Amino acid sequence: MTQVRSASSVIPTGGMTETTTGIPMSDPTGAGAPVTDEEIFTGHEGGKLSVAATRPIASPRDLSIAYTPGVAKVSRAIAEDAAKAKRYTWADRLVVVVSDGTAVLGLGDIGASASLPVMEGKSVLFKTFGGLDSIPLVLDTTDVDEIVETMVRLRPSYGAVNLEDVSAPRCFELEDKLKQALDCPVMHDDQHGTAIVTLAALRGANLVLDRAIADQRVVVSGAGAAGVACARILQEAGIGDVTVLDSRGIIHEGRDGLNPVKERLAATTNKAGLKGGLAEALEGADVFLGLSGATIDETLLGRMAGGGIVFALSNPDPEVHPEVAARYASIVATGRSDFPNQINNVLAFPGVFRGALDSGARAITEGMKLAAAEAIVSVAMDDLGPDRIVPSPLDPRVAPEVAAAVAKAAEADGVTA
Amino acid sequence: MTQVRSASSVIPTGGMTETTTGIPMSDPTGAGAPVTDEEIFTGHEGGKLSVAATRPIASPRDLSIAYTPGVAKVSRAIAEDAAKAKRYTWADRLVVVVSDGTAVLGLGDIGASASLPVMEGKSVLFKTFGGLDSIPLVLDTTDVDEIVETMVRLRPSYGAVNLEDVSAPRCFELEDKLKQALDCPVMHDDQHGTAIVTLAALRGANLVLDRAIADQRVVVSGAGAAGVACARILQEAGIGDVTVLDSRGIIHEGRDGLNPVKERLAATTNKAGLKGGLAEALEGADVFLGLSGATIDETLLGRMAGGGIVFALSNPDPEVHPEVAARYASIVATGRSDFPNQINNVLAFPGVFRGALDSGARAITEGMKLAAAEAIVSVAMDDLGPDRIVPSPLDPRVAPEVAAAVAKAAEADGVTA
Repeated sequence: MTQVRSASSVIPTGGMTETTTGIPMSDPTGAGAPVTDEEIFTGHEGGKLSVAATRPIASPRDLSIAYTPGVAKVSRAIAEDAAKAKRYTWADRLVVVVSDGTAVLGLGDIGASASLPVMEGKSVLFKTFGGLDSIPLVLDTTDVDEIVETMVRLRPSYGAVNLEDVSAPRCFELEDKLKQALDCPVMHDDQHGTAIVTLAALRGANLVLDRAIADQRVVVSGAGAAGVACARILQEAGIGDVTVLDSRGIIHEGRDGLNPVKERLAATTNKAGLKGGLAEALEGADVFLGLSGATIDETLLGRMAGGGIVFALSNPDPEVHPEVAARYASIVATGRSDFPNQINNVLAFPGVFRGALDSGARAITEGMKLAAAEAIVSVAMDDLGPDRIVPSPLDPRVAPEVAAAVAKAAEADGVTA
Repeated sequence: MTQVRSASSVIPTGGMTETTTGIPMSDPTGAGAPVTDEEIFTGHEGGKLSVAATRPIASPRDLSIAYTPGVAKVSRAIAEDAAKAKRYTWADRLVVVVSDGTAVLGLGDIGASASLPVMEGKSVLFKTFGGLDSIPLVLDTTDVDEIVETMVRLRPSYGAVNLEDVSAPRCFELEDKLKQALDCPVMHDDQHGTAIVTLAALRGANLVLDRAIADQRVVVSGAGAAGVACARILQEAGIGDVTVLDSRGIIHEGRDGLNPVKERLAATTNKAGLKGGLAEALEGADVFLGLSGATIDETLLGRMAGGGIVFALSNPDPEVHPEVAARYASIVATGRSDFPNQINNVLAFPGVFRGALDSGARAITEGMKLAAAEAIVSVAMDDLGPDRIVPSPLDPRVAPEVAAAVAKAAEADGVTA
């Protein structure tokens, strides 16, 4: 969740709060009275997770089945046939939410322990929407190789890794190395969850506007975890062109001091070879995708082609107020629950992991991510409109649809067992 | 649970089974029809643990409290004051059950994955009896330093470590190093859980026989995890003398090839300087404590002082049939549920960890273990008799009593925060 947080430290959960973009956030939940600090802290008291036994231990007989001597038969069966662990332990369907706490929300590098409430929340969402058991594992090291080594050692304990809130560009290296080292689904949600939901929203918006994605030019502001992954999935989805900006401006070939990730971007994006800043990038663009955490001057949006699309995804402060953006664009989306078209990762990750585990996938492929985006669009289709380009984050139809599509794509891609 | 398993691979959970000591084990649960294989495997299908949210996510408001944006306030509060993690995450009260699968039940070194059903069962018992959340972490490495390093990296994720089914003598080194490296309760249950319950049972037996523990000579057969820990706690409890045997016979000073653990034993036990085997050790002994997994010739028990105590704790096959042992001793105990006086670790570990975590203990001291044993005895006192020297493993009074006594001892020992 790192990518869509603005630099501001204002968290819109107290009473009436003026944010840097001037949006009053008295009721971010859209559900009545403002959420109070007391409500928040009470909601986290003692943590948000609990472990339960799937079957009660109420008699000596229960004890002799779940524990000694009965359990020895199950352990021996697995020792003789390793594949039986899939059936007789919880590990195969357990998602570990892994973080080193280096890029937590808009708070930055606050460390593993302080990141834990976020990771517990993520585990709650895996259970609530995906029906998957999940535990957080937060690490007191920021060394990529040490994190990989730790997860390799723990491999028999879990079935999939959701990487979370790891700072860029370390997150790219870490995800790559984990995918190489582990024979199970691995996904950095700040990258790919965001990318999947953004692609789904862009598809939804284009359906509303009756436009083809192949004709469009997208400007991505921000080259962190989310910006890089969004640029990549849009290319895979056949977008016309993408131009990506970081804090130094447009990323183009030949620019000094590009890290390997940005060098790859430079080689594959920005077909027109644009240089300069946001003003140059937005000239005639069809889509603005804000993932930088920086507010922008609204008049820049006036440079875009008319009737376009603005996704101002920084949280809690969108790059530009959605009502202001609406003066320049036909469709506007944010990451916030108190405006229409909320682009929220929870539309993707529970179903993606559920589908991957249901199908016995050893990895999460590009095809599975694209299928997830299409499934989200398919649910939105029932009620599509300028203010309904994606389903609600709480829509219970989404995760099963995503899971089914991802499982099918896993089989098509040949990564299932 | 390694120590009290016999070498036999007969697991007494099927129908009528003749074990090496000739004990028919048709109904080990004492609860009607024999437990079938089908019942066992069905009882483990999908694993035995499940993660639940402590509060449901049913509305946008719930989502904004448990996840973004509300959770950011909680993370920031912990970043500013690390002590708040104790209150607002689950980690502080989470027990991780850690194993490398090198000494699982009577099955030996079957590896991490095959050990997982046992560890899940342990987590179930932590919840059922101690009310503590617990997850298994099984490791695909048997290197002591790598296991320590892994647990140090994961330190922000949990509150206490229950070490389980690690082979001797590595288990001694591993526990020592973990205790040095971690500022939280660490206990190898195969050592200390067994030792606590054995001491409690010996106290109970001596109360029945109206004898003083200080006058007695105990013979411990087996110098693995349990044997070593039992010898140590009996010495701390003021037992008259202990003689320990390993597979080569009596451990005495000057014996060749003793590892450091056995050298310490040699220096502090066997006051009479006995040499030889079980026959020599048992001559005039008051207590036989079987923890070796090997059956013994019953006539050896005839060498003991009359009216003594025999604890034949190997599972599933006691060193000697309890009815046979009763010919030589006044009080007999086993590890089995189908005979009286079952000595089962579950009487100790849930309450020990609960008390340690309730009191904010940074370690588990010798005083806390002795207090746990006394608390078990105190529950047994209500109904003490030759066949009731310890409470039933399912007695719900035990864990709270143990927890209260352990917490008090932690404060007395000055290891609380």
